[in-house]
Amino acid sequence: MTRTVYLNGEYLPEDEAKISIFDRGFLMADGVYEVTSVLGGKLIDFEGHALRLQRSLDELEMQHPSSRDDLLEVHRELVRLNDITDGMIYLQITRGSAGDRDFAYPSKDTAPTIVLFTQAKPGMADSPMAKTGMKVISIADQRWGRRDIKTVQLLYPSMGKMMAKAAGCDDAWMVEDGAVTEGTSNNAYIVKGNTIITRQLSHEILHGITRAAVLRFALEAQMKIEERPFTIEEAQGADEAFITSASTFVMPVVEIDGAAVGAGTPGPVAARLREIYLDESRKAAL
Amino acid sequence: MTRTVYLNGEYLPEDEAKISIFDRGFLMADGVYEVTSVLGGKLIDFEGHALRLQRSLDELEMQHPSSRDDLLEVHRELVRLNDITDGMIYLQITRGSAGDRDFAYPSKDTAPTIVLFTQAKPGMADSPMAKTGMKVISIADQRWGRRDIKTVQLLYPSMGKMMAKAAGCDDAWMVEDGAVTEGTSNNAYIVKGNTIITRQLSHEILHGITRAAVLRFALEAQMKIEERPFTIEEAQGADEAFITSASTFVMPVVEIDGAAVGAGTPGPVAARLREIYLDESRKAAL
Repeated sequence: MTRTVYLNGEYLPEDEAKISIFDRGFLMADGVYEVTSVLGGKLIDFEGHALRLQRSLDELEMQHPSSRDDLLEVHRELVRLNDITDGMIYLQITRGSAGDRDFAYPSKDTAPTIVLFTQAKPGMADSPMAKTGMKVISIADQRWGRRDIKTVQLLYPSMGKMMAKAAGCDDAWMVEDGAVTEGTSNNAYIVKGNTIITRQLSHEILHGITRAAVLRFALEAQMKIEERPFTIEEAQGADEAFITSASTFVMPVVEIDGAAVGAGTPGPVAARLREIYLDESRKAAL
Repeated sequence: MTRTVYLNGEYLPEDEAKISIFDRGFLMADGVYEVTSVLGGKLIDFEGHALRLQRSLDELEMQHPSSRDDLLEVHRELVRLNDITDGMIYLQITRGSAGDRDFAYPSKDTAPTIVLFTQAKPGMADSPMAKTGMKVISIADQRWGRRDIKTVQLLYPSMGKMMAKAAGCDDAWMVEDGAVTEGTSNNAYIVKGNTIITRQLSHEILHGITRAAVLRFALEAQMKIEERPFTIEEAQGADEAFITSASTFVMPVVEIDGAAVGAGTPGPVAARLREIYLDESRKAAL
């Protein structure tokens, strides 16, 4: 089936959705994005993604081409048109095209480009990996310095995924100044006793929407949270490790650079948080 | 006049040149580029740009959709079709579109996207700035770690240009660990006595084509070259400062963070190197 996608106000067949070669998203990676999950035909954490999108745009002095309400409507219409039960909605906004290439931003009346499309993932919440856990390698974090802004400068995360694949693993955790920043497209956590350890928010990591929700649920479940950097060695010696992201929710990590974490099988804390997150998010879904 | 641009084998009017929203250049900044100058209707340093392009592609395990000869032919045809006397030719190659979004690279049979377009700059070699010199500010270098690969991840250089503009200056020099890496789209140099000082090649800076040529000409002119990092303070206390790039050639810098360099006017070394570079490059132009 041909997907229907959204581009600058129009719903189009996916192969007709084209942008100018002068779009600053294409020429200069001058754009931001969000990915929102869909479960049972409803949007997970929509408000969080809408707020973070606004923050990314503000940090880059970019205009928002849409309102929160219109954005919600487009998300819902794409779910309907593409008959999505479980999956993701990708949204990208760029600074648009001024018809030529220039490092300087174009004038304020240049229309931003906005694109949304769906990705169907039937049974996404029942991923077999939640039962087996994932294996990660560590790599140096070579990304730019403002990872809190969710830009499309994703070449290094993409290279990281390929390095993981080449090593027979599922993802890479990035390390800077001796400590883990995050995964290639997810936040990283370890568990020691009753304490969940994850890096504090800063310009060094993405301010995960799933991260915020999971930490809130963990607190409500009487767990302790330490927001601080941790090393690969500390992670390898932890009781459990896991990641969070909009598309994987909470996913256990059972091996880091070839060393088993804990028993080398998914642990109870990650399993519990995944269950709570999925339950609560479905209840609050729009 | 509507420009004619080149896209994947076709010569098209600029407003008809469009790429898929699924192009990895647009979604993930998964692409590389080159800018070649045109003077008197001929290509400057074409071989250097063609070689660096191949290196960028190799580093990213990307396919080259064209041969050196075909690329030269496309450059020349665009110069002819758009009647370019002085200006630039921009070339971008991305990993193409596999019809969806995924961090993992698409299969090897996915066609890369190749785009070229011209930018006319009449009198480009007689820029008034060569007479007045340019003013720069210093900013932190927040780019990713592989600046030797000429990728389209140009958001931070673009932000840097806007910071310079807001400060009433022409460009920004980026500083990392206390030393200057380079300008937002050019290599940075200072002059002390008969010595030209510029940062050594590494993953931290772009391997400028104009840089290589200018250093060669400087050696031939009996100047000394020290390839090492320098600080903003050292630059402010130097006799001269300048930049090099494919589109500005050699351009004097007369002010750094509000402090005059030398006499605060363009110096003789930069002027001499600019002259030699322009003369020699025109002679060797294709």
